[in-house]
Amino acid sequence: MIRIAVDVMGGDIGPEVTLAGSALALKRYPGMSLIFYGLAEKVEPVLRKYPILASCMFRATETATEMDEKPTQALRSGRGKSSMWHAIESVKNGEADVCVSAGNTGALMAKSYFCLRMLAEAERPGIAGIWPTIRGDSIVLDIGATIGADANQLVDFAIMGAGMFRALYHVRRPTVGLLNVGREAVKGLEEIKKAAHILRDMTFEGLEYRGFVEGNDIGKGAVDVVVTEGFVGNIALKTAEGTVRQAAKILRDAMSDSILSRLGYLLSSGAFRRFRQKIDPRRVNGGMLLGLNGVVIKSHGGTDAEGFSSALRIGYEMVQGGLLEKISADLRHFHEK
Amino acid sequence: MIRIAVDVMGGDIGPEVTLAGSALALKRYPGMSLIFYGLAEKVEPVLRKYPILASCMFRATETATEMDEKPTQALRSGRGKSSMWHAIESVKNGEADVCVSAGNTGALMAKSYFCLRMLAEAERPGIAGIWPTIRGDSIVLDIGATIGADANQLVDFAIMGAGMFRALYHVRRPTVGLLNVGREAVKGLEEIKKAAHILRDMTFEGLEYRGFVEGNDIGKGAVDVVVTEGFVGNIALKTAEGTVRQAAKILRDAMSDSILSRLGYLLSSGAFRRFRQKIDPRRVNGGMLLGLNGVVIKSHGGTDAEGFSSALRIGYEMVQGGLLEKISADLRHFHEK
Repeated sequence: MIRIAVDVMGGDIGPEVTLAGSALALKRYPGMSLIFYGLAEKVEPVLRKYPILASCMFRATETATEMDEKPTQALRSGRGKSSMWHAIESVKNGEADVCVSAGNTGALMAKSYFCLRMLAEAERPGIAGIWPTIRGDSIVLDIGATIGADANQLVDFAIMGAGMFRALYHVRRPTVGLLNVGREAVKGLEEIKKAAHILRDMTFEGLEYRGFVEGNDIGKGAVDVVVTEGFVGNIALKTAEGTVRQAAKILRDAMSDSILSRLGYLLSSGAFRRFRQKIDPRRVNGGMLLGLNGVVIKSHGGTDAEGFSSALRIGYEMVQGGLLEKISADLRHFHEK
Repeated sequence: MIRIAVDVMGGDIGPEVTLAGSALALKRYPGMSLIFYGLAEKVEPVLRKYPILASCMFRATETATEMDEKPTQALRSGRGKSSMWHAIESVKNGEADVCVSAGNTGALMAKSYFCLRMLAEAERPGIAGIWPTIRGDSIVLDIGATIGADANQLVDFAIMGAGMFRALYHVRRPTVGLLNVGREAVKGLEEIKKAAHILRDMTFEGLEYRGFVEGNDIGKGAVDVVVTEGFVGNIALKTAEGTVRQAAKILRDAMSDSILSRLGYLLSSGAFRRFRQKIDPRRVNGGMLLGLNGVVIKSHGGTDAEGFSSALRIGYEMVQGGLLEKISADLRHFHEK
């Protein structure tokens, strides 16, 4: 049984989405057990709508973290009180194996960092995102935990990202690339070039370093793990999301232009459904906080029930794949040399 | 008459594409006159295929810049000799109003910088790209002229980008945003926050500063001009290009999945054509080198004739819109205060 602590209050909508998503996930993954944290008056009425959730534990909390609270403020006001804090703390206490929240990213990062602390071998946390590509899913990190990263931190991201890829996709030796503005070794920022040297020279069975990759290589699935610092990663991710939405909007408009194209659309509706599923960001909704002494998943704040259930599934698979053990063993192995 | 100097040798293919594109452009814009630079033995046979180009001037050059030459090497070997150098020099000499090349970006940047020098008021060059959005085209800069930028350089990019937008789209006061990882004033890098202060406090009729924008705002067309430094801009641009290609590939695969969807595709083929046109990167193919004492356009190396003709059109419109005068007046106005 894998035990997931759910911050029911997180997200733009809150309990209506997180509990609906929990019900979906529980139906699909009977090996999952859920513990809910949230405000009693908000959670209980929604909880009653889902008979499948009746057997889950619910723990009432005093407060909930607002979506626009600043990290320091959220830490001050929520410590020991908020649903987000309690969900994280249950991982620390060993009551849960993983915490999932669709709440405010900065607050989740700050609280997780403060409550769980870092793995002994990791210097800085990172958030890893799952990126759908033509070849399958890739992992991109850091997508916004912190801004800037030096060469050693980039190398840690490479190791942690590869560990996550192995845990999720059961690949023995994931390929890793450093995001840069060109493939040639002369290009890019100093820290990226230094990280490239370290990665090229290291002998480590857990990943295969493939060199620099560019922005357009991500969607191609050129490597399994794309490493960058948080500012660039965040902008790349959001730019891609914006581009997918833009392409879908333009396609929709073009399709409703004439009667003929509307008819064509009806006939191809199965194909369009498959298209949407493949580029649907909800399918891989789940940023992973890496480097912490515990597994914490960040779901998109604006996700729906389907998306939230994906985040729960990712948490489930991450624990099942032994993510934390893999990452800490790998970092230890690497830093001991 | 607007006189365009064409580096015929530039691009992955060379004369076959650049001359075919020139023929297309000349047919569409009779107000254009072209001067070709390139190796006689490569250019002349192709030139003979296009009667419309018979009246254009052709100047044979000694060398051509390779697509993979390093900027310093290209400058050393090509100075006074290559087709790229001569095309740029003709702008300096006043023989041409604008130079267009699909050659190696680093070499074009280095030669233009060396030959044309900077505008007195500009500190650093930038490359501006035209980005198709849901609302129309936006301009994004810097997309890779240099790496890193301080606050004053970001402000210069804002002024130059707004000048370019006015020259191309005849909008009196384009909106400008600074690319960042969040919209709140507390987020992001120090230099971006400083630039935000300067832009917020400035009184300048040539642009309207709208604050921070995120990656997903670019495709929405949230602002007319998106300002960032070259590393982030280059990665955002290439990530978006990769995402468009990925979405198109997934859609194509989905459409050929069944007989029904293939039939639907036939019926909607007009809609698909409109979709492709709208997201077609060739339509807005033309990076603009800004900050130099002359107008230089960089076309994609891998473009086709249609794309190269777009780059020529952009050069034409840029000169017609009085780009250089606008930008130098604006920078002077701003820096005098």
